[in-house]
Amino acid sequence: MSVDERREQLIAVALELFSVRPPEEVSIDDIAAAAGASRPLVYHYFPGKQALYEESLRRAGRELAGRFEEPPEGPLSERLHRVMGRYLDFVQSHGPGFAALLRGGSVAASAGTSAVIDEVRRAAHDQILGHLAIPDPSPGLRLTVRAWIANAEITSLEWLAERSVPLEELQLHLVQEFVAALVLTAAREPALGAELASFLADERPDGPTGRLVHDLAGLLAVPGITEALGTLAAPPAAPVASPPAAPVADGPSPQAAE
Amino acid sequence: MSVDERREQLIAVALELFSVRPPEEVSIDDIAAAAGASRPLVYHYFPGKQALYEESLRRAGRELAGRFEEPPEGPLSERLHRVMGRYLDFVQSHGPGFAALLRGGSVAASAGTSAVIDEVRRAAHDQILGHLAIPDPSPGLRLTVRAWIANAEITSLEWLAERSVPLEELQLHLVQEFVAALVLTAAREPALGAELASFLADERPDGPTGRLVHDLAGLLAVPGITEALGTLAAPPAAPVASPPAAPVADGPSPQAAE
Repeated sequence: MSVDERREQLIAVALELFSVRPPEEVSIDDIAAAAGASRPLVYHYFPGKQALYEESLRRAGRELAGRFEEPPEGPLSERLHRVMGRYLDFVQSHGPGFAALLRGGSVAASAGTSAVIDEVRRAAHDQILGHLAIPDPSPGLRLTVRAWIANAEITSLEWLAERSVPLEELQLHLVQEFVAALVLTAAREPALGAELASFLADERPDGPTGRLVHDLAGLLAVPGITEALGTLAAPPAAPVASPPAAPVADGPSPQAAE
Repeated sequence: MSVDERREQLIAVALELFSVRPPEEVSIDDIAAAAGASRPLVYHYFPGKQALYEESLRRAGRELAGRFEEPPEGPLSERLHRVMGRYLDFVQSHGPGFAALLRGGSVAASAGTSAVIDEVRRAAHDQILGHLAIPDPSPGLRLTVRAWIANAEITSLEWLAERSVPLEELQLHLVQEFVAALVLTAAREPALGAELASFLADERPDGPTGRLVHDLAGLLAVPGITEALGTLAAPPAAPVASPPAAPVADGPSPQAAE
């Protein structure tokens, strides 16, 4: 093996071990044994376990970020659904390492490992904003995207620990939560209304958004829900005996947010 | 000062310093100086900075968890709104320490600091489920609660870094995101429909849920949105030339999720 080949092989072997065990349970001896190399040879290439851990993380981070890439074609929710399929596949195959990395508090956590996590999050954020194709996204929209990415991370971690729902359900739910977060953001920021309309116009009844709309329509059939929403949406009645209510954002007027 | 008083004073001083600076920027000398004590005296009470850091974190964690306590009275979203006011007040006053703790990758991160974070998260989770008062909450509902807690954390962190919106807006948005997450969960789990109806029936038009309903109603007035939702909600048209569509969750039927 050439020097470069040996180095690549050690990283690949380390990544495999760090994927299935938390870093504190992987030793240089384990890596040497799995690579069919001697301990001094591993040290010849890497100053220690931490350096090898960080290098294998960087590779994993790059691979994960690569999975976020998706051609800008078809309904948005279906693009995100495909990406989440690849993401969750990664989570499943790198479970213990993914968990150890994101749970933090690991002895191997460092500025280097934080940088890898930040970079993957940034890649996800940039991909999503790219697909949304909204020029000059507002701070509120950026926050929505980041918060949803955090949601996807924590949900994946919980899933790894309990596996209480099928992975396909998780995939669909995460996409639908993104759609819901987008709707909520547009409800607060009237400037996004037109973008939301064009996003919805491209969606399909049997896609993630269509299925969400179906499920929500089903909820409206539950006794009491439509009535309660009607009461909440109605303009407040003229006060009778109580003091006048403080002015409240009153719905449709887009000026309210300007 | 008695032994106990001195110990408490050192913890209080340390907590104050760790609140305003990341742990790596606080030394035992800083703590001794702020407490008007000598370096050996600090070491007499604590084996080192890490122990003092973890003890002050435990105190902060207990204080934060205490802020989650709220009497079970009034509309749910208004209770959560009050809790979030106290939570964000804590975030604001302990900003740099809160950020260093949650960002992880800090040199001071350890099993001890992770345990504090986990305990605060568990307290938040238990409080919320207690207020929801849903007997035997499903794995999906628990996941919704945990994911929302993660959302609150990341949103607070982002806010600390950029302060791009007023804190009161963040408070309202987080509560409304919880309401939306609850609606989404009920849309997936028909067993929760009746609980959602009774939750909505208790809400008020000028509370966080009422204001969300108003904003969403406003969104329906944006040209194209009602039409797009109507198309998505309509049962798929009989296929003409294309092959028959795969069966899709078709809305109202509660059996679908059983």
